[in-house]
Amino acid sequence: MALTFRGAVEQDVERIVEMLADDLLGKERERYAQPLPASYLEAFQAIDADPNNELIVAVDGTGRIIGVQQVTFTPHLTHQGSWRATIEGVRTDSTVRGQGIGGQLIRYAIGRAKERGCRLIQLTTDKQRPDALRFYEGLGFTATHEGMKMKLEATEL
Amino acid sequence: MALTFRGAVEQDVERIVEMLADDLLGKERERYAQPLPASYLEAFQAIDADPNNELIVAVDGTGRIIGVQQVTFTPHLTHQGSWRATIEGVRTDSTVRGQGIGGQLIRYAIGRAKERGCRLIQLTTDKQRPDALRFYEGLGFTATHEGMKMKLEATEL
Repeated sequence: MALTFRGAVEQDVERIVEMLADDLLGKERERYAQPLPASYLEAFQAIDADPNNELIVAVDGTGRIIGVQQVTFTPHLTHQGSWRATIEGVRTDSTVRGQGIGGQLIRYAIGRAKERGCRLIQLTTDKQRPDALRFYEGLGFTATHEGMKMKLEATEL
Repeated sequence: MALTFRGAVEQDVERIVEMLADDLLGKERERYAQPLPASYLEAFQAIDADPNNELIVAVDGTGRIIGVQQVTFTPHLTHQGSWRATIEGVRTDSTVRGQGIGGQLIRYAIGRAKERGCRLIQLTTDKQRPDALRFYEGLGFTATHEGMKMKLEATEL
């Protein structure tokens, strides 16, 4: 499928949240409702204001958004001082899965990482998604690391 | 051991690189030499200029830097629009290991993440470091994800 990639604009946020929520894990943690919770727009504005964050949408020939991902560029002292790219929040529309859209998205992120001079590109994938692990391995990623997370509650302070 | 935490300044970079290089994996990929490769200072300046990145040093009672870590704060649309903190490049001086300095560093990062309103704190740890996995589990992290990496070469474009 021929796709166009572009940076997301505020008018895209509702459609992006619709895709984030239409997912095994996303349906538990997202809230796709009208009106959309203001926290989504606030997060979009923070991403949009940060030159080291890009929220990228994939658009089909009819203008419909059918994929999304966020790429963060981070400078590090490690590896002799270098930039790395981190991919997060990858989703494709559930009605068009299996058509290589995810692969096109990730290859676009790899291209952006190279353009930005990154030495490394990385992501974490939930161990509850074995298909995603194989998908990323097929694109050239290696699961060399454990991805460790901790939820924070303000009341734990 | 009583430690003080503060943001790193440019004069700290050489000492930080000394610690990064004094490590099983770091000795292969870092270059601690005089003069220090300019790429380290360039990376420091990029970190220092970015309000969403903090390079934090742990200082002992004599003023000596004995620990370092980088914390990156990133806004995301996922999880109903939220910020998350990522810890990277954690090192403690090899002569003072086993004295709880690493634990103090990570707890400081958790505190900063809460102050910045993060809903999640995360890191990846190399599967070649089983002790590190247990260390982070002891601090409350869970290895729910695979941490996938891909090295990039400009010539692959």
